[in-house]
Amino acid sequence: MTVTLPPDMPVDVAERIKEEERRYARALQREGKWLHLWRIAGRYANLSIFDVASHEELHELLANLPLFPYMDMNIVPLVRHPSAL
Amino acid sequence: MTVTLPPDMPVDVAERIKEEERRYARALQREGKWLHLWRIAGRYANLSIFDVASHEELHELLANLPLFPYMDMNIVPLVRHPSAL
Amino acid sequence: MTVTLPPDMPVDVAERIKEEERRYARALQREGKWLHLWRIAGRYANLSIFDVASHEELHELLANLPLFPYMDMNIVPLVRHPSAL
Amino acid sequence: MTVTLPPDMPVDVAERIKEEERRYARALQREGKWLHLWRIAGRYANLSIFDVASHEELHELLANLPLFPYMDMNIVPLVRHPSAL
Amino acid sequence: MTVTLPPDMPVDVAERIKEEERRYARALQREGKWLHLWRIAGRYANLSIFDVASHEELHELLANLPLFPYMDMNIVPLVRHPSAL
Amino acid sequence: MTVTLPPDMPVDVAERIKEEERRYARALQREGKWLHLWRIAGRYANLSIFDVASHEELHELLANLPLFPYMDMNIVPLVRHPSAL
Amino acid sequence: MTVTLPPDMPVDVAERIKEEERRYARALQREGKWLHLWRIAGRYANLSIFDVASHEELHELLANLPLFPYMDMNIVPLVRHPSAL
Amino acid sequence: MTVTLPPDMPVDVAERIKEEERRYARALQREGKWLHLWRIAGRYANLSIFDVASHEELHELLANLPLFPYMDMNIVPLVRHPSAL
Amino acid sequence: MTVTLPPDMPVDVAERIKEEERRYARALQREGKWLHLWRIAGRYANLSIFDVASHEELHELLANLPLFPYMDMNIVPLVRHPSAL
Amino acid sequence: MTVTLPPDMPVDVAERIKEEERRYARALQREGKWLHLWRIAGRYANLSIFDVASHEELHELLANLPLFPYMDMNIVPLVRHPSAL
Repeated sequence: MTVTLPPDMPVDVAERIKEEERRYARALQREGKWLHLWRIAGRYANLSIFDVASHEELHELLANLPLFPYMDMNIVPLVRHPSAL
Repeated sequence: MTVTLPPDMPVDVAERIKEEERRYARALQREGKWLHLWRIAGRYANLSIFDVASHEELHELLANLPLFPYMDMNIVPLVRHPSAL
Repeated sequence: MTVTLPPDMPVDVAERIKEEERRYARALQREGKWLHLWRIAGRYANLSIFDVASHEELHELLANLPLFPYMDMNIVPLVRHPSAL
Repeated sequence: MTVTLPPDMPVDVAERIKEEERRYARALQREGKWLHLWRIAGRYANLSIFDVASHEELHELLANLPLFPYMDMNIVPLVRHPSAL
Repeated sequence: MTVTLPPDMPVDVAERIKEEERRYARALQREGKWLHLWRIAGRYANLSIFDVASHEELHELLANLPLFPYMDMNIVPLVRHPSAL
Repeated sequence: MTVTLPPDMPVDVAERIKEEERRYARALQREGKWLHLWRIAGRYANLSIFDVASHEELHELLANLPLFPYMDMNIVPLVRHPSAL
Repeated sequence: MTVTLPPDMPVDVAERIKEEERRYARALQREGKWLHLWRIAGRYANLSIFDVASHEELHELLANLPLFPYMDMNIVPLVRHPSAL
Repeated sequence: MTVTLPPDMPVDVAERIKEEERRYARALQREGKWLHLWRIAGRYANLSIFDVASHEELHELLANLPLFPYMDMNIVPLVRHPSAL
Repeated sequence: MTVTLPPDMPVDVAERIKEEERRYARALQREGKWLHLWRIAGRYANLSIFDVASHEELHELLANLPLFPYMDMNIVPLVRHPSAL
Repeated sequence: MTVTLPPDMPVDVAERIKEEERRYARALQREGKWLHLWRIAGRYANLSIFDVASHEELHELLANLPLFPYMDMNIVPLVRHPSAL
């Protein structure tokens, strides 16, 4: 997920959306659905691993991200690797 | 990491290299250096997260992969995300 | 899925693999897992829609395609569209 | 089809266009011309299959989409696949 | 259509295929199906306009090109332009 | 040629430019310089073939298109194909 | 790092940010963390080599660049080369 | 060099900058530093060959172009060709 | 023009083709048709400017290059620039 | 510089070329022409900074690299940065 906020978005609006995003991200992590979340160094972007029951649940979860309208996402379907412990 | 084996590699050679790769991957997972390992669905490729002390250690670790000569890698430097628990 | 057979594959080997692919594709269509299958005009490639329970089932299904070693795949996760009937 | 609405489009205008789009999409599905319609997970985009008599009919149909001015389309010509049932 | 012949194809085989291609291309032009055919300057490639009744007819026509196994194609669906005479 | 009008261009200005474009395109077709003109299905774009004496004449002709400031062009130099009738 | 300032940023604001950037870049060079800094000829872009203890330190350092909100970065992890003196 | 003027730049400002660009380009051609200058047909872009003593001189020369803030450049380092007369 | 010789081409064959290329390139430069010829630094590639009467003459000239079967070309149509002396 | 050795190059030939490359790289570093040399982590590639008097010297230097025939290079012209110490 790469975030691009409009350059003319007022600072307080941006701060509010980011705060909502933070709360939402933490709630989903506590529920075990947002399995991993890393910042990509030097960019306003992250690498996330989700553990959900279906594509529908994934889409619902992503479309509700407060920053969703400002995000460009690249989704890669993962499966268990045969060499993973 | 995307793996492309030469089409004329004998099956037993390929099997032996893959078996070595499996052992190596598991040893590194047990040491806690190869943090996560997923297969990308529908492709002979994986998404891996490493937890190492330096780029030198990462390069050493990757260059020793039995499949390294047949791999194309895209490395993204990660940091802790401020919203991660 | 785009298929690229090695130029030096003997014609009878290619024909045998294609015949196995055909049988496999038809069996999966009858089971309702390979929902749609179209040829892309002018190319040795297809557009397919799968209806499976998980990424694991999808990967299993694709990795068993007789033509899998010669295929380049681009997988897009789909969900029901709110405007679909 | 990928949709990009101008960031400064008023919410009610956006809602009205989306509602018209929904009605139009459903009418074409009922007529059997818009054969399949899926949302691409995590994106404001869809994958659609049309069953029309000619490129002219396809263009007419697409150019009349209420969201057409805000869409970027990639059209792939399909034919029946020899292995399709 | 861009043509890439294998570097080790014997010259007489290449000449024979090209001669068949020429005959086939001319027959289709006489039938009015291969409407226009231009060489792209400086490349072993052409720009062609076809006038066919369906994608099925187009695919049939293209798949039968003697050079088809050595071609990379990019197909763009065209319609009459409102400003065309 | 792909056309992208600024989203805030008033409708009547757009209509006037398009009408001028139409007149200009038809005049050049009558002169035999704009040999072919097709709409690309599903896009505000066209594929055109010009028959001019020099690159200078081509540039002059294109730079005078009323929609030129809003166009992105990709020009491919063509020659007669040896298999063309 | 490629810099793109918004075209409507007032000249004095741009000058102030660039002056802060200059001070920040020089301080980091004096500390030995910003090892090398070159302008890419003909572009508002630079090639920089950083010597930091971790990705976290790198991200902190980059996110604090006064021009960071206007930069597009491409980060390549480096290690000592076996042939380097 | 590809030029993209902001769509809302007043016509007289654009004309003045272009006139300055013209004078600057001609002065550098007379000095023998701007060796060749061609328009790319159908685009607001040019292909230029410079003959300068160093990258520093090239950057200085380019950064002083009146249109520089509106240009996207792709620089290719050239050397004498062994087959050139 | 970028040249890629097959890795298994015997050295003497490569030398002979390169010598023929050199003679051909020089003859065309003397005739004034191959206006400029530069090596791209660090690559087996060149940037060339041709001055020919038509696309047909250009294609004829290029297709007869001894290295043509091993070249990948990108052709840009040029015209006189209004600011060129 | 990215290195791709042919998969069928005998190990001793590869070792000999790499040893020559190492000697050549070290000699040029001692002369002060090969200013910096880093391995790109996880890839058989490097990032190098050269300090030479001209493009001709750069090309000469690169074309003489023992691994040059197996390298793909991307060259970026650099100049002193105004903020560099």
